[in-house]
Amino acid sequence: MKRVGIIGASGFAGAELMRLCAGHPEFEVVFASGDSQAGTPVGELYPSLTAAYPDMTLEPWEVIPAGLDIVFIALPHGASQAIVPKLDAAHILDLAADFRLDDPSLYPTWYGQEHTAPELLDDFAFGMPELFRDNLFGATAVAVPGCYVTTASLTLAPLVKAGLVEPTGIVVDAASGVSGAGRAAKPGTTFSAVDENFTAYGLLNHRHTPEMEMAIGRHAGTDVQLLFTPHLAPMNRGILATCYARPTGEETTEQLLAVMAEAYADEPFMVVSEAVPSTKATLGSNSVHVTVRKDERTGWVVAIGALDNLVKGAAGQGIQCANLAVGFDETTGLASAGMYP
Amino acid sequence: MKRVGIIGASGFAGAELMRLCAGHPEFEVVFASGDSQAGTPVGELYPSLTAAYPDMTLEPWEVIPAGLDIVFIALPHGASQAIVPKLDAAHILDLAADFRLDDPSLYPTWYGQEHTAPELLDDFAFGMPELFRDNLFGATAVAVPGCYVTTASLTLAPLVKAGLVEPTGIVVDAASGVSGAGRAAKPGTTFSAVDENFTAYGLLNHRHTPEMEMAIGRHAGTDVQLLFTPHLAPMNRGILATCYARPTGEETTEQLLAVMAEAYADEPFMVVSEAVPSTKATLGSNSVHVTVRKDERTGWVVAIGALDNLVKGAAGQGIQCANLAVGFDETTGLASAGMYP
Amino acid sequence: MKRVGIIGASGFAGAELMRLCAGHPEFEVVFASGDSQAGTPVGELYPSLTAAYPDMTLEPWEVIPAGLDIVFIALPHGASQAIVPKLDAAHILDLAADFRLDDPSLYPTWYGQEHTAPELLDDFAFGMPELFRDNLFGATAVAVPGCYVTTASLTLAPLVKAGLVEPTGIVVDAASGVSGAGRAAKPGTTFSAVDENFTAYGLLNHRHTPEMEMAIGRHAGTDVQLLFTPHLAPMNRGILATCYARPTGEETTEQLLAVMAEAYADEPFMVVSEAVPSTKATLGSNSVHVTVRKDERTGWVVAIGALDNLVKGAAGQGIQCANLAVGFDETTGLASAGMYP
Amino acid sequence: MKRVGIIGASGFAGAELMRLCAGHPEFEVVFASGDSQAGTPVGELYPSLTAAYPDMTLEPWEVIPAGLDIVFIALPHGASQAIVPKLDAAHILDLAADFRLDDPSLYPTWYGQEHTAPELLDDFAFGMPELFRDNLFGATAVAVPGCYVTTASLTLAPLVKAGLVEPTGIVVDAASGVSGAGRAAKPGTTFSAVDENFTAYGLLNHRHTPEMEMAIGRHAGTDVQLLFTPHLAPMNRGILATCYARPTGEETTEQLLAVMAEAYADEPFMVVSEAVPSTKATLGSNSVHVTVRKDERTGWVVAIGALDNLVKGAAGQGIQCANLAVGFDETTGLASAGMYP
Repeated sequence: MKRVGIIGASGFAGAELMRLCAGHPEFEVVFASGDSQAGTPVGELYPSLTAAYPDMTLEPWEVIPAGLDIVFIALPHGASQAIVPKLDAAHILDLAADFRLDDPSLYPTWYGQEHTAPELLDDFAFGMPELFRDNLFGATAVAVPGCYVTTASLTLAPLVKAGLVEPTGIVVDAASGVSGAGRAAKPGTTFSAVDENFTAYGLLNHRHTPEMEMAIGRHAGTDVQLLFTPHLAPMNRGILATCYARPTGEETTEQLLAVMAEAYADEPFMVVSEAVPSTKATLGSNSVHVTVRKDERTGWVVAIGALDNLVKGAAGQGIQCANLAVGFDETTGLASAGMYP
Repeated sequence: MKRVGIIGASGFAGAELMRLCAGHPEFEVVFASGDSQAGTPVGELYPSLTAAYPDMTLEPWEVIPAGLDIVFIALPHGASQAIVPKLDAAHILDLAADFRLDDPSLYPTWYGQEHTAPELLDDFAFGMPELFRDNLFGATAVAVPGCYVTTASLTLAPLVKAGLVEPTGIVVDAASGVSGAGRAAKPGTTFSAVDENFTAYGLLNHRHTPEMEMAIGRHAGTDVQLLFTPHLAPMNRGILATCYARPTGEETTEQLLAVMAEAYADEPFMVVSEAVPSTKATLGSNSVHVTVRKDERTGWVVAIGALDNLVKGAAGQGIQCANLAVGFDETTGLASAGMYP
Repeated sequence: MKRVGIIGASGFAGAELMRLCAGHPEFEVVFASGDSQAGTPVGELYPSLTAAYPDMTLEPWEVIPAGLDIVFIALPHGASQAIVPKLDAAHILDLAADFRLDDPSLYPTWYGQEHTAPELLDDFAFGMPELFRDNLFGATAVAVPGCYVTTASLTLAPLVKAGLVEPTGIVVDAASGVSGAGRAAKPGTTFSAVDENFTAYGLLNHRHTPEMEMAIGRHAGTDVQLLFTPHLAPMNRGILATCYARPTGEETTEQLLAVMAEAYADEPFMVVSEAVPSTKATLGSNSVHVTVRKDERTGWVVAIGALDNLVKGAAGQGIQCANLAVGFDETTGLASAGMYP
Repeated sequence: MKRVGIIGASGFAGAELMRLCAGHPEFEVVFASGDSQAGTPVGELYPSLTAAYPDMTLEPWEVIPAGLDIVFIALPHGASQAIVPKLDAAHILDLAADFRLDDPSLYPTWYGQEHTAPELLDDFAFGMPELFRDNLFGATAVAVPGCYVTTASLTLAPLVKAGLVEPTGIVVDAASGVSGAGRAAKPGTTFSAVDENFTAYGLLNHRHTPEMEMAIGRHAGTDVQLLFTPHLAPMNRGILATCYARPTGEETTEQLLAVMAEAYADEPFMVVSEAVPSTKATLGSNSVHVTVRKDERTGWVVAIGALDNLVKGAAGQGIQCANLAVGFDETTGLASAGMYP
């Protein structure tokens, strides 16, 4: 059994790591921190975890034992920059944005502050196995990308890499469940504000934009520019991204689908199909569903992808990367079957 | 009091007409049909209407009294073509698509069958007061446009008319609540299928596409071409359309907003603001909320609009048109305030 | 037009008063306060009200004009005790609990503090027209009861008054939508906490218990004792109360229903039927749906009632009482038809 | 690996069995039937299962291979009576009501028809491990009780058995998510009918009543009589039962909780706590949360329990029983941690 620590277990991504580790045959959570909740039993904050962790209490992160096999960090952006240099663990997986961007100059622009540990950026592998698996075998530090980035990148990357769509002028129009906004009670995340509501937010400058451009561009070997419009849908989980791009040639829907299917032929969590993806088909699983269409009338290529933002978009992808890092089968402890309904 | 008949009161749009007429100070529903439900008390099918219509029973449409002041038709597409020629009423308002398109040749393409009464198309005014009010004063026949068309048209028309965006290459990416799919129980509209789900449907060829192109184009005096992608959101009501267009010039967000605000300055139901529209702000009301942005980084213009699909997107717009047709103040009996939460 | 002021317009009940007054032909809101939001445009806090109140800003309650015709107070419990003595208005309607209980000694027990203006308790009429209408004609001060109390009282009172069920040993098991918890963001009212969840709260000692006992008991002329268990359902609005009582005689379901129907025969907002009430049938309306059953097998009488907690359970009932106080038809400006779906 | 067949995989309980078996380390689904869907790929009916069962197609049940280790039957009531006699399998687990009641005379009363295989009733163990585990080790036939029955029985049984509450006069007031009504599209299960709605149904004579009475009574060794009122809550999954009973003595809340805790001290899926159970804490898991209160004011004992109706209330309990039947650890392949949010 690998000894696992989770820093930030009081947030949704951290709690999801707790849930998934409880079902992982080779991971044992021996430490969980939640600074603002230190001293609180895990099951008091998350009754859903009472049966699995009847005796565990959240602690301050500083008392994490040294020498753990795996440490997941699931903190708000900016916090792990300060923590990582102090950690002593065989494998570190950071679920925040702190070590995702390879160009430190992007942080002031999109996150509003200088990176405080830019020298560590190169140490971190980008944790999206389907596009960058080679970097993950045995990795000691992984920056796990987030939900919107994973959805858009896995949906668009094969098409951009194959040169079938223009890498600029792309529109990513996406909708997310509310858990993406975190556990904290805010005026915009109350039930009364969200239920029976659909709205857009973060217009023009959502901070995950450059990660999408970087991930797709690095995979395809070209510069990518896209406009990302996130929406909030009245549901707990799930992201669906509907992406619009200009074709470079005359490929039909069938041909585009074939390229996607070929790209993901050996991926255990990718489902490529003519069926239109839906968030619900991925609920609770680590799977990603994608499709693509060519509109002969207007000339647009429309590619759509869906996943569970807390599993493949956060904790599940983190565990998938950890499995690769420690040498396990990458699917260990991860469900490919979604919960329905 | 105007004597009102509602053909198709068993569907959601018809039931919403019943609700709105119950609160209209000058309309009295004297007849309601629901062919498949003929003989059923209104309140048995819609308990929400029991208190307002304790003694009314749904009848077959054929027994509608002659000489009513106003008749609303709220039937599935294709049915009113056969009914309208037989109606004897001072003002007919059809909420279906049968008399919306001015070019009869579009019907086989988008609706799969020839129009059976093309000679009547010219008799019908297009019922979108904010863009085509002049045709509605005293109109004897009105084709009331539907929810997606009204949302996209009111969001985009001022920008296209002012020549600020290209009239082609437009993307309309929209999400709707489930009531847009009607009352009938179908595998895709069960709670278990819809709740906690977000998905796209009708890819590339949704039949409301040509109505959007016609409405915007006619208002702007130019040919419009757009790609429309509808999505299904887990909520009862509401439509939000996020529209992407290419700018023709260098106008900023402020300038685009000013053009929109000017276009709708005297409209009682239009709210133009920098605030991002949300479906919930329009719930139960006849109001439409719109905004616009220019993304200097990628060059896209993003315009967003929201409304209640059963009110401004159906029954409310029908009543607004009926008010104009009979000479009432256009806001009579219609709420501009939404129900929240 | 009656000049209306609303103290506490930033909360849900206050905002609902704003919505209903916007549609009331004889009420004009000339003042709206929201102390913690003073200076905020109404439409910024509630975009749903932008179209109806484009130019109104929330003010501190102290600047309320003197001599208004009607003042509604919609503040958290305890606040109106201090405000009422300072108000100069022809008719005051308080939607809080401050003046509902006739026995001041109940306040320390159920609300945890002494009443600071017990001498005013006798000035307030209890604002439930269906049970206590005589006190409301021309009333200068009305204590409008809340959602749970109105539901349980209107469901049980006719049966208790007629002596058909025992007045003690009653169980009121009720579920409410989340808006009953107010607008403030709290850990227990986030979408993530509430959606897909059903739970009980306030076990044994919910503070609305004595109001129910008082209202039913006063109407029936007997002492009532009941156990009230509220639940939270994942929806915005609506309350359904399922009440269990022991029969005193052998009356059948039909006989019990007949007594209920007779009791409410002339009530414009009461729907008595064998159909099982549902919250959705009352959404947005001032209607109350009730039914009753006798279980011959176990001997229990089961009575069920439903209403919209923000309309008949708060703002709508307030307006109904205000109509009676100023001498209007009691239904003026109130919908009996619910919004569906 | 045990070779598993699932008869009725097209329904929700069957699909949940598919999901759970996909994550079970020792169960392999080799056959899945869905008569009305025979010939349909599993992933076409349930896209959530595409990744886990990419190549499996639903078949008619008659072609089930002989000699399977385990066969689950998840059909509507009445169907398994005809199928069981024809099955050749080492262990049969029926999720319907066909073999749950020990007294065949109850079937005509509560299910409206005579049992066609009453001689098999004695062969079936009642599949509720927490109350009747001894019968399940090595069992060849198990009747797995359903969601309402499991919730009410596990909540009340320890109190009745300990003689702390009267076994008659009990009220079970429960709410369920919509998946309990099955996959079929019906007018009452559309999103538009269910969302934002809370209502009661099956008043007085819901057919699961005698199972509750039998399960609790058999465990406690006494005759039990209760009134069961189910409600429909606007959510996919989950059942919460709030139960009211008369105490026999003076035990306090603390004493009642202690008895419950003692009864379930060694149960891996039972969580006994003073915390109020919520359906969401059990989502996707096999756990059951229970609590109890004594109301000193009115004398009532209130006991509350919650679980996931498709897991512990159906498929999960089936797998728990199958584990016991074949000799595995009873928790194998079952999550005790719930999915949140």
